[in-house]
Amino acid sequence: MASTSPGYGITIRVEGSPSLQPVALITSAITDAGATITALDVVESLLEKVVIDVTCDTIDADHADQITTAIRAHKGLVVRKVSDRTFLLHLGGKLEVQSKVPLKTRDDLSRAYTPGVARICQAIVDDPSDARRLTIKRNTVAVVTDGSAVLGLGNIGPAAALPVMEGKAALFKRFADVDAWPVCLDTQDVDEIVRTVQLIAPVYGGINLEDISAPRCFEIEARLRELLDIPVFHDDQHGTAIVVLAALRNSLKLVKKNLSDVKIVLSGVGAAGNAVSRLLVLDGARNIIGFNHKGVIHPGMKSDDQMQQWFIEHSNKDNFQGSMSEALVGADVFIGVSASNILVESDIAAMAQGSIVFALANPDPEIDPAIARKHATVVATGRSDQPNQINNVLAFPGIFRGLLDANAHKITDELLVAAATAIADCVSPEQLNTSFIVPSVFDSHVVTAVAAAVRKSV
Amino acid sequence: MASTSPGYGITIRVEGSPSLQPVALITSAITDAGATITALDVVESLLEKVVIDVTCDTIDADHADQITTAIRAHKGLVVRKVSDRTFLLHLGGKLEVQSKVPLKTRDDLSRAYTPGVARICQAIVDDPSDARRLTIKRNTVAVVTDGSAVLGLGNIGPAAALPVMEGKAALFKRFADVDAWPVCLDTQDVDEIVRTVQLIAPVYGGINLEDISAPRCFEIEARLRELLDIPVFHDDQHGTAIVVLAALRNSLKLVKKNLSDVKIVLSGVGAAGNAVSRLLVLDGARNIIGFNHKGVIHPGMKSDDQMQQWFIEHSNKDNFQGSMSEALVGADVFIGVSASNILVESDIAAMAQGSIVFALANPDPEIDPAIARKHATVVATGRSDQPNQINNVLAFPGIFRGLLDANAHKITDELLVAAATAIADCVSPEQLNTSFIVPSVFDSHVVTAVAAAVRKSV
Repeated sequence: MASTSPGYGITIRVEGSPSLQPVALITSAITDAGATITALDVVESLLEKVVIDVTCDTIDADHADQITTAIRAHKGLVVRKVSDRTFLLHLGGKLEVQSKVPLKTRDDLSRAYTPGVARICQAIVDDPSDARRLTIKRNTVAVVTDGSAVLGLGNIGPAAALPVMEGKAALFKRFADVDAWPVCLDTQDVDEIVRTVQLIAPVYGGINLEDISAPRCFEIEARLRELLDIPVFHDDQHGTAIVVLAALRNSLKLVKKNLSDVKIVLSGVGAAGNAVSRLLVLDGARNIIGFNHKGVIHPGMKSDDQMQQWFIEHSNKDNFQGSMSEALVGADVFIGVSASNILVESDIAAMAQGSIVFALANPDPEIDPAIARKHATVVATGRSDQPNQINNVLAFPGIFRGLLDANAHKITDELLVAAATAIADCVSPEQLNTSFIVPSVFDSHVVTAVAAAVRKSV
Repeated sequence: MASTSPGYGITIRVEGSPSLQPVALITSAITDAGATITALDVVESLLEKVVIDVTCDTIDADHADQITTAIRAHKGLVVRKVSDRTFLLHLGGKLEVQSKVPLKTRDDLSRAYTPGVARICQAIVDDPSDARRLTIKRNTVAVVTDGSAVLGLGNIGPAAALPVMEGKAALFKRFADVDAWPVCLDTQDVDEIVRTVQLIAPVYGGINLEDISAPRCFEIEARLRELLDIPVFHDDQHGTAIVVLAALRNSLKLVKKNLSDVKIVLSGVGAAGNAVSRLLVLDGARNIIGFNHKGVIHPGMKSDDQMQQWFIEHSNKDNFQGSMSEALVGADVFIGVSASNILVESDIAAMAQGSIVFALANPDPEIDPAIARKHATVVATGRSDQPNQINNVLAFPGIFRGLLDANAHKITDELLVAAATAIADCVSPEQLNTSFIVPSVFDSHVVTAVAAAVRKSV
């Protein structure tokens, strides 16, 4: 499924003599190599040479090299420079801190700093709850990771995880005007992570745990929820679960089935899979069969992991013990939060009529959605270049916006379901079709609706 | 020394009948009560009433109440609302996080977040030093406190210290375009503070320790300098020392004395006092006598505190054992980093000709500068409403700008002296006089000069 992506965009500066028709040469070299031109500018035009900047999306880094080589292969064309758009974007990082108050005069300093600020400190000493009124605690969320489970990269550690956390913080600001800040911890010890978050909590109105591997993430979230008086939310679990529930609700409307009747096969019973199934069961699902890389989860198995144990007790009531392909025969729903390319076409073909396939493995889904679409009625992935993108961005901004505004800290499963309903309802009956089961992340109603649902439910 | 301050500014909304001449009534009520009007707006003007917003600086909260009462005392004037400008400024805190990258389209998301960001993470995995090029680590400083020694308020804890840290971060951005972020730690245990800063360090290019009480601050700074590969700087020590040295250099030029010849009396031998004396001794001072609240520090005393021990060994060579007033007889320089109102006029009068008095206690100096000026040639305080403000804002922005740009982490005393020289040299010979011994904090050359001096010295 090799398609070009803006994530692999490059800008190549090429020089050539006008007599060679360099624009035509360059565009055909690029198109022949399978890349997508997104911009072309003649930056300099002289009698003896033209200088052209051509921007294109490529498939990956190797592909970008191939294209540059293909252009160089033409005598008379000189590649002056290749800029990677993604790398350029990241120079110096993606966030900055800004002052909200003027600092132009001594009087400004006297109010924002000494001596005026002392009175604000004293007010908080006198009434600690005033911190939420008079400091950034009103609007801040710490995006906390140890870098142990980042995207498709795995355990890369805190420094390499920082670009993802910066991106997350940028999304918090862009979609919900929340001031989020990265906290990348140089430890993977659960006790140290819990204690550190507790120690930094005075600055924050909420904690978003991110890319922390299971099962440690469960214990970290549970302990922090006990210790802190601000909300703690592990997005990889709950954000995914919320959006999956919203997407599934809308998909079931389309195929006219009920959640309590459908047979659901779940691939991946880690952080996301566990959270997905908890919400689905809360919302009425009664027939989930789960698989991890070792095979089916069935009654009689035991686990020290509390989350895993819950799943054992609430799934696979008929004690099915076959393979995933066998489980998919006649299944209504497949939800994959696992690994790429673990299903084949016949698996989808064997599912029931009006089947629903959510293949959410990152970066490549459990099955090529184009193949799945040949048999399933509704197909969704996590990819931005496919319809029906199941994207946590639909959930976490509105969730925290609502929690911060409500000054609430308890996050119940009911709150999560309310958020899912709000997301699902952002797709009107007129809009709802098999290629549009969740709203666009750029639909500004989503954050408002989710925040309102959260405020109502606390 | 009760003067009005913008730190105690209020805005009063008053209504009255036009026939009463309400503007005249209000302004005389305010002026009679000793406040300073800074703005007056008629916000509504009708036949039967006018509504007036009058803004004034007051001395303190009680004074503000008196003024409001005085206005209310007039029949026909109704006080609708009293807004405290400083409190209004602080609603929701003083900082926000902004994205530096566009997030308007799916393509933008693909570059700033998944999947494009994965390549940036991989680049840092492959070469960890790339974190400084590709993330916010290039430009971030953590402003770290435990709230144990905040301004004149003392041990108020992390939540109440946050407004000061926010202000510090705002100053970092305003003066040096550094992205600083508050880290207020809910512990006062040295080991926990050191470990926590070590664990959060991946996000930061530098650490600014702030308002942490002595002697713990010395150990915390020393241990963090060992453990981290980014610069660690306790501003209360070194920032103060740098600006004091700069101010003293310029003052000595004015009175035509040499640092190696002058007798210096130092009041306060805590964090700031220790750091000041270390720099003065490095720069040539040979005759410092120090006092804390227990009396004079003299040879033969012993201290477990390494810093205090250094001071014992490098000061008071003649083993003076009298009082501070006695020490001030014939002294050339008084430096106070201690408490308010501990000197009297005769103390200053007893000093040598061409005496220099730096009375830096916060918020009220060791002696009223107006009184000191009757006898001393050069008088400086930490106050913004007096000439010669010894303000750390002259140092820390340029220090960190230079360190971040030089990718340096070792902070030597030579670096601090170089910064002091740069600050002193920002006052040209034409500008230098007894009321202008340090540049204005708003002089934009200061940060540039200090940063350049820092880069040169690493």
